[in-house]
Amino acid sequence: MNKSILITDVTLFTDPATPLLGNHWLLTQGNTIHSFGPMDTLPPQDDATLIDGKGKLLMPGLINGHNHCAMTLFRGLADDLELGEWLNDHIFPAEAAHVSPEMVYWCSKLAAAEMILSGTCTVADGYFHEEQTAQALLDTGMRAIPAQGIIDFPAPGVADPKNNIDAAEAFLSAWQDKNERIRPGIFAHSPYTCSPDTLQRAKKLAAKYQAPFFIHVAESRLEPELLMDPQGTSPIRHLAALDLLDANTILIHCVWLDEEDRKIIQESGAGVVVCPQSHFKLASGIARVTELEKLNIPVGLGTDGSASNNSLDLFREMDILSKGQKMCTLEATAMSAQNALASATEVNARILGFSRLGKIAPDYMADLILLDLNQPHLQPCYNGDLLVYSANGADVTDVIINGDVVLRERKFLSFDLKETMQQVRRLATTLNSSLS
Amino acid sequence: MNKSILITDVTLFTDPATPLLGNHWLLTQGNTIHSFGPMDTLPPQDDATLIDGKGKLLMPGLINGHNHCAMTLFRGLADDLELGEWLNDHIFPAEAAHVSPEMVYWCSKLAAAEMILSGTCTVADGYFHEEQTAQALLDTGMRAIPAQGIIDFPAPGVADPKNNIDAAEAFLSAWQDKNERIRPGIFAHSPYTCSPDTLQRAKKLAAKYQAPFFIHVAESRLEPELLMDPQGTSPIRHLAALDLLDANTILIHCVWLDEEDRKIIQESGAGVVVCPQSHFKLASGIARVTELEKLNIPVGLGTDGSASNNSLDLFREMDILSKGQKMCTLEATAMSAQNALASATEVNARILGFSRLGKIAPDYMADLILLDLNQPHLQPCYNGDLLVYSANGADVTDVIINGDVVLRERKFLSFDLKETMQQVRRLATTLNSSLS
Repeated sequence: MNKSILITDVTLFTDPATPLLGNHWLLTQGNTIHSFGPMDTLPPQDDATLIDGKGKLLMPGLINGHNHCAMTLFRGLADDLELGEWLNDHIFPAEAAHVSPEMVYWCSKLAAAEMILSGTCTVADGYFHEEQTAQALLDTGMRAIPAQGIIDFPAPGVADPKNNIDAAEAFLSAWQDKNERIRPGIFAHSPYTCSPDTLQRAKKLAAKYQAPFFIHVAESRLEPELLMDPQGTSPIRHLAALDLLDANTILIHCVWLDEEDRKIIQESGAGVVVCPQSHFKLASGIARVTELEKLNIPVGLGTDGSASNNSLDLFREMDILSKGQKMCTLEATAMSAQNALASATEVNARILGFSRLGKIAPDYMADLILLDLNQPHLQPCYNGDLLVYSANGADVTDVIINGDVVLRERKFLSFDLKETMQQVRRLATTLNSSLS
Repeated sequence: MNKSILITDVTLFTDPATPLLGNHWLLTQGNTIHSFGPMDTLPPQDDATLIDGKGKLLMPGLINGHNHCAMTLFRGLADDLELGEWLNDHIFPAEAAHVSPEMVYWCSKLAAAEMILSGTCTVADGYFHEEQTAQALLDTGMRAIPAQGIIDFPAPGVADPKNNIDAAEAFLSAWQDKNERIRPGIFAHSPYTCSPDTLQRAKKLAAKYQAPFFIHVAESRLEPELLMDPQGTSPIRHLAALDLLDANTILIHCVWLDEEDRKIIQESGAGVVVCPQSHFKLASGIARVTELEKLNIPVGLGTDGSASNNSLDLFREMDILSKGQKMCTLEATAMSAQNALASATEVNARILGFSRLGKIAPDYMADLILLDLNQPHLQPCYNGDLLVYSANGADVTDVIINGDVVLRERKFLSFDLKETMQQVRRLATTLNSSLS
């Protein structure tokens, strides 16, 4: 574990603001990046694990700002449906019947496999039986913020919503110091499924454990009408009135904001995570990210769960983030490739509270990915834009997380992928036969 | 060449309207599909090439309705720029200095490699020195409609625009009966770069050779102001006034249409090809495909060239086509995965004039692709929706075009990919050094 790794002769992408550096080496030490430089300064390293980077690009591991990992079981189960029908007739019944600790473990592990294979090293997750997701992500080698769901309805593992805060506290307390790669969080489902009192107690709990507080908000244009006991005329004003917004709050979605909402977010210091593919596919709309950027509100990127995307590939997500902003503003300069890359790396790191993550620099965490540039769709390679507009997750060959090689030439060193796929297929067969 | 191929034990996707068929076999004969059925009806085939389809999905090869293959050289050269600056300061100067017959050959071959590797068997192309693109596509094993560009400006290979029609006729005449996989066409650049007289002569030429007539139209909201000698108040009405619209006309882009434009297209029988990623990236806007569907106007799908996308992966394009329509209509039922799949297969076939292409049926052309389902992002596999919302081009393992295996386990049998990449890298190095 954590043997030094020396990557040689690689094209280096350190961060979005820096041009590509050809023919470089990089050395890790323990779980951090030690140093890097051009090949003519290659240091002698007799006892490091060597990785030949020739023809490859080395970049920071991507960070997924929002996921519901366990929902891989529902990928493709019900597409092209109106939101209410999708939720009420398909997703909620499937969850009620098929979410178990075992299901959450294996389906989260499958999500981790997909994420690692597409270059994601860190994920912020929100679901139920979250201890299973935490364990699955730990077992696969990922870095993660698993956040236990809180909702004022019966939920998997929390049959009586009266116990939702206690269940969340048990989770925080069990996982807060378990492993350096796992930092537990709180996921309050939304202001239309949690009462003001529940939201405030959830936020207080997060503060007590210095845990990040996630909440779905302003996803649908109908949400203002659905708020539980509204304390404001918009979902954001409702949360602000409840004193829920600060730098430890991460607002997921934010598709439907007005000018006042944006000002409130700006002043609060809260972060925003958008999930453009999910917003598109569920016909929620398009988050006006360029308007948030103007106010210097940090906007990170997430995939959302596999039931509403249906892909956990952040390369795809960066591409749509950028192109969507250009389309809706009719400005081709909007949301550059550089900004999209920042959203899925250093901005997500900042929002999620990681101080040394999301770029390649000495003493930063050694979360690194290699891509095979030697492919037709990545020719020519003039600059790093191709990571957004041309690359996809399948170009990733190797993944290092916290200084350990997790994926080598697309083979997992950290866990048994075949077993995971077999387990999920078995669960899907059960689900499918229950439908027919 | 054209030895029978027997694919066994495969999951079969015959066309978007039919559910997936598990454990099937399929047999080709010559350049067509002979028959298929469940494994318990497997016929004896001693002399066929055998392909084990276990764990794979077999579907019709995708059809790219619009590309500028040679522009792979300009991929990533200039991103995130306003359209005028992009064209006038980057693309046009690069084309003037770097487009040569040699460049068109190698860069088209690179495009073909990318397309085949992502499951595209047929492409409609439009550019200059089109005989080189035709030869490159022929050499790689693709099926294609290469269309010679016509424009009232000096162009690569046609220094004096007075010769643009003659050059196009020479191309049609040279390629019309050369090979069953290559059908030459005419590509009139646009109503803002071709005079009414040029457009009418180009259309007449296409009619003389029964060749498809392609034209860029209604791409930008500024286009009505840019028409050369306008004959109508919109680009579509301009083309209609010039009598250019009929079932052999393919209208590329159609982002900015009004109700009257749509009625005119509907009555003319012309086809439409949209390129959503290019429309997004260049900030052209979003083509309202659902409005065209209501009038039963056939809408096909294209990637556009690599300079404005920057990917030729039609799986990605289908995904954005579908999600974009849901987003802009705020209707999650809009542009289902099935419809997106039809756009890139049977609808494109119809628009481009192929009567037996775009689905799996006896006597249809044997253009077939296999995808590896045995991957985390394609689990579970409930139905064919995953081809749009979860798959990507890198999932393609094998490609058969016109009854010949062109790609086997992602290795080309038809040409030398390494040589092609080296040639394009050499051209890109020349281009890059001319910029610095």
